[in-house]
Amino acid sequence: MRLAIDAMGGDNAPKEVVLGAMDAISEIENLNITLYGDEKQIKPLLTNDNNIEIVHTDEVITSDDEPVRAVRRKKNASLVLMAQAVKDGYADACISAGNTGALMSAGLFVVGRIPGIDRPALSPTLPTVDGKGFLMLDVGANVDAKPDHLVQYAIMGSIYSEKVRQIQNPTVGLLNVGTEDGKGNDLTKKTFELLEKAPVNFVGNVEARDILNHAADVVVTDGFSGNVALKTIEGTAQTIFTLLKETFMASTKTKIAAALAKNDLRGLKDKLDYSEYGGAGLFGLAAPVIKAHGSSNSRAILSAIKQASYMVENDVTNTIKTTVESIESDKE
Amino acid sequence: MRLAIDAMGGDNAPKEVVLGAMDAISEIENLNITLYGDEKQIKPLLTNDNNIEIVHTDEVITSDDEPVRAVRRKKNASLVLMAQAVKDGYADACISAGNTGALMSAGLFVVGRIPGIDRPALSPTLPTVDGKGFLMLDVGANVDAKPDHLVQYAIMGSIYSEKVRQIQNPTVGLLNVGTEDGKGNDLTKKTFELLEKAPVNFVGNVEARDILNHAADVVVTDGFSGNVALKTIEGTAQTIFTLLKETFMASTKTKIAAALAKNDLRGLKDKLDYSEYGGAGLFGLAAPVIKAHGSSNSRAILSAIKQASYMVENDVTNTIKTTVESIESDKE
Repeated sequence: MRLAIDAMGGDNAPKEVVLGAMDAISEIENLNITLYGDEKQIKPLLTNDNNIEIVHTDEVITSDDEPVRAVRRKKNASLVLMAQAVKDGYADACISAGNTGALMSAGLFVVGRIPGIDRPALSPTLPTVDGKGFLMLDVGANVDAKPDHLVQYAIMGSIYSEKVRQIQNPTVGLLNVGTEDGKGNDLTKKTFELLEKAPVNFVGNVEARDILNHAADVVVTDGFSGNVALKTIEGTAQTIFTLLKETFMASTKTKIAAALAKNDLRGLKDKLDYSEYGGAGLFGLAAPVIKAHGSSNSRAILSAIKQASYMVENDVTNTIKTTVESIESDKE
Repeated sequence: MRLAIDAMGGDNAPKEVVLGAMDAISEIENLNITLYGDEKQIKPLLTNDNNIEIVHTDEVITSDDEPVRAVRRKKNASLVLMAQAVKDGYADACISAGNTGALMSAGLFVVGRIPGIDRPALSPTLPTVDGKGFLMLDVGANVDAKPDHLVQYAIMGSIYSEKVRQIQNPTVGLLNVGTEDGKGNDLTKKTFELLEKAPVNFVGNVEARDILNHAADVVVTDGFSGNVALKTIEGTAQTIFTLLKETFMASTKTKIAAALAKNDLRGLKDKLDYSEYGGAGLFGLAAPVIKAHGSSNSRAILSAIKQASYMVENDVTNTIKTTVESIESDKE
């Protein structure tokens, strides 16, 4: 298996990307990695180049670049070359911690869609209280979604959860403003009806307040609401941890308390750290494309590489393709 | 001033509602309160009936009732009678901690809309890290919103923030998937253009991850996304506090830490407690209608009563009415 990796994407590139790649090679058998980026920066970090090659490029897409334009104009950017390698069949999957919008554009315009999938979905796995996590899709690839798109997300999310997350018959919930049937806006009401007939284990509406309590293994939503939910989780957690830190610095007494509970509190933060669950998959593309978190360290890069390799190994893309084909042919 | 209060609404009714009402009478001058509900239950709690009268009714709308149907059929429910009192001019504003959907229905069908406002908005004030709080609307009164509705929310939210929250020239942000101009779905793109021309202090798009950091004084959004954001804040906070509790119960060491930091940690939780900011206003109705949180204690009820009385005192409803009228006449 060969993975193409954008060595220049993310806040800690190229260092943490290169370290993560070396760790992956030592952990995963029969893995080959191509790193795309500035050879001058990458080479000194590469203390072991077993099964790792570098394709040099000076061009980079930054987080400030306008995504669609950047992918069209910067044809030699590390992110674009990486996607092109997948398109050309040189790599089986690709990973970037860079500009999310640019990766979605490169996925759509360079790698291309699976026939029958109208819109790709950005699909992170998020933490739950029970430690098992859940998949939410879409969190922003497609902000004007139609009911059919959400049904495709449900199918793709179920296949991924079964094949990669090893969950038998994963439950699918529809993110909504209430749990009762018949609740919601136009989009969710129509989607609810379609999901009841779809080949997934649909458990009905789920509310945003219950998703971290593992209300479903797969939570389906339009890209706008999903993005709001994801960023609200991030913002709320960050706010509470900031206030918690201030609280513990307030007095000598609380400082002692902090010292006593330090390791345990770090464990709590780790529990909520979704880099442990890999990156966000861009589902619906002709090959696995993984968006690692922008602040990824080597461990998060390693998780994303494992995730991509599981997706390749378990043939997720082909399973989505044949499932969608069989649904289409049933319709005819 | 006379306020009509549903004594039977909420998890702690009628006790906490009655206690909150008595506290309000002792704090606010020239206030008269009518409590709607079961006299047998209310009377023993009413240790001081200065300026408080009871209108007895046996009928109650529960949290399980289907809202629209319940308001139509249970014409003598405490929540409906309370709204009817406002409609009939017997009370200046009303408050319930009961079924949110039923209160929205009673607001819309019994109290009625301000002419020129297409849809009422449910508008809670939420906590921010700096302790100042922000107003978010709509969080679920209208789940299929149009750009014009969001502009009306911005106007109503600004007026409320100026008149009641005493914020001069309050900033208005549009909840969106990115902060850059031009971001978003169809609804937010069109709304952005309208807000630039609206008579409010529009500061552009705000992201869900920044709202608790006080990104704007008023955050405008459609009822579906707003509901998702609100419930995600609730769910994430609850999840973290649950994990925090578990963490502190893990060992003797952490239990000592918990004992030392107990009071400070309680202070942190209070900081995030939005019952301090009163209830959620249902803006756009012909009189102030306040939804107190379902789990309100007497303090939260008192906050909601204060909020309603400020709205009456500062003539929020009439200001919204004349502002909308002047915009309409400018259009002609």
